[in-house]
Amino acid sequence: MAYEGKRALVTGGLGFIGSNLVRALHELGCYVGVIDNLAPDLGGNRYNVHGIEREVEVFIGDIRDEKAIRDAVRERDFIFHIAGTGSHLDSLEKPFQDLEINAVGTMCVLEATRRESPAAAFVYAGTRSEYGAIRTSPVSEDHPLLPTEPNSANKAAAGLQTIAYHQAFGLQTVWLRLTNIYGPRMLVRQHAGMGFMNWFVRLAVDGGSIRLYGDGSQVRDMVYVDDCVRAFLLAGVTPEAAGEALNVGSGAPASLATIAQTLIDTTGRGSIECVPFPDEAKRIEIGDYVADTSKIERLLGWRAEVGLKDGIERTVRFFEEHKDTYW
Amino acid sequence: MAYEGKRALVTGGLGFIGSNLVRALHELGCYVGVIDNLAPDLGGNRYNVHGIEREVEVFIGDIRDEKAIRDAVRERDFIFHIAGTGSHLDSLEKPFQDLEINAVGTMCVLEATRRESPAAAFVYAGTRSEYGAIRTSPVSEDHPLLPTEPNSANKAAAGLQTIAYHQAFGLQTVWLRLTNIYGPRMLVRQHAGMGFMNWFVRLAVDGGSIRLYGDGSQVRDMVYVDDCVRAFLLAGVTPEAAGEALNVGSGAPASLATIAQTLIDTTGRGSIECVPFPDEAKRIEIGDYVADTSKIERLLGWRAEVGLKDGIERTVRFFEEHKDTYW
Repeated sequence: MAYEGKRALVTGGLGFIGSNLVRALHELGCYVGVIDNLAPDLGGNRYNVHGIEREVEVFIGDIRDEKAIRDAVRERDFIFHIAGTGSHLDSLEKPFQDLEINAVGTMCVLEATRRESPAAAFVYAGTRSEYGAIRTSPVSEDHPLLPTEPNSANKAAAGLQTIAYHQAFGLQTVWLRLTNIYGPRMLVRQHAGMGFMNWFVRLAVDGGSIRLYGDGSQVRDMVYVDDCVRAFLLAGVTPEAAGEALNVGSGAPASLATIAQTLIDTTGRGSIECVPFPDEAKRIEIGDYVADTSKIERLLGWRAEVGLKDGIERTVRFFEEHKDTYW
Repeated sequence: MAYEGKRALVTGGLGFIGSNLVRALHELGCYVGVIDNLAPDLGGNRYNVHGIEREVEVFIGDIRDEKAIRDAVRERDFIFHIAGTGSHLDSLEKPFQDLEINAVGTMCVLEATRRESPAAAFVYAGTRSEYGAIRTSPVSEDHPLLPTEPNSANKAAAGLQTIAYHQAFGLQTVWLRLTNIYGPRMLVRQHAGMGFMNWFVRLAVDGGSIRLYGDGSQVRDMVYVDDCVRAFLLAGVTPEAAGEALNVGSGAPASLATIAQTLIDTTGRGSIECVPFPDEAKRIEIGDYVADTSKIERLLGWRAEVGLKDGIERTVRFFEEHKDTYW
């Protein structure tokens, strides 16, 4: 109800998480604007807002374009800043590009918000990989930031800016640290920097061979995208969360082997193959990750509700139905 | 001895801390190169290397100039990256410039090191203000980063990059978090972003009125520059410190009122005036700060040796002697 008749902007709103949030906001009766540069391999796709495209105001533009972002941010009650890069491997090759998009880009959105809509709630999509090399598990928000590659350092840099803009300029910023989010509209087109889940889903639907490094016992914390969207919506209407970093995780560990097997069981296709860890992957492997979710439960009353089996089922059905569009 | 006959580069080497380090390296028999852009108000000053200018290789250039930094970094055993901005107030007005110099600039130095001198020890001059709003005291390296303004966020962003470059590319980076460093060659020319100690020293030498906000009971952790230089030198020759953040602090709290009174007692001139906190200063005031120095004591065997009274005495005598040059 807090969103009905209000005005929101979603950066990266044609991407995976962004478009799911756009759809949820639209259903809540919110006027939604989107800014997205449709950069190749970042997941932006006009089809993601199929069916509501005429009711959503879409700015095709880059968050680093000062005029474009000021126009997009103007007269908003909520800014959901999701645009960015998330590929660890790409950032090894192109660290400056990654820094520009994540750190400079976020400052552009923050500055525009400060000038145009200083009272708006501002929710930033950070990542649990900002914690980097894990020392203690489950990982609370006070875990030190020990990024293992430039992308995670740059995502954390952007998050630190949201904290600074809250403290110095009074912006109502919330820094979410998303764990592995999966679900409908994720990017499953083959490209170098794609995440493991995107790749696994594609292979399972295609009946291919899912490759695990080592024995696949590495643990991740998976959150279905509808749960993630709910965390964004709650963060936007919880003033006590301003200036805080919050883990968005299920708190339930899932091994890569379990995830792969669940996918195969769901599709009834595909197989698993175990191979030795490649050197580069080993160097930036962040180790087992499970989020401590007590802070977000306390501050937002949020917890993940969709279990792994259910989430995978919904994801697989979506892509089986829309394979022509997303493959 | 570890520095004798070796080759070091000091970015920002014509500035306050940089030039004191350059002098120490030179005395140890190290070949020293300097890159400095002599930007106004950042403290770079050719006079800081007076007496050794013909034995130091000086590149006047910007760390963000790819060719200049690659030339400067080539064939070095040690890189001391000190160039950057440190003004909190300036960063409120010019957040992008601050981000460019600190975050983009540091990545330029890291990338150049990775390409040209990947085996060099790399020591980064971060700041205790990266901790921002202090929650627990004394402040250990695991204290969360809660920057209160863009400069501290950007300095922390640069530090996170040094961690990432250690993890991903094997660079031997050490992230020092310097507390308030003071001493000969600090910037005492009047400008908007100058630190309190710079200002206090100038006023005490001139016999002016030192203005304290509130009752001056705010606590800082002061380190004399020779101690700070020793921390850099030890960090450069301690492989176990690679990938670590280390507090460079005295661990001994000093109130602004005590510092001001010690200055006045030392010069025999000047006075103290207490005024209410201005709004802007209150918003970005980081609160009392005392460093937990157990980690640097353990890893580097370093601790501050010059007490406040002694350090202030040496500082005042230097500036009384060189007032014509530095005022």
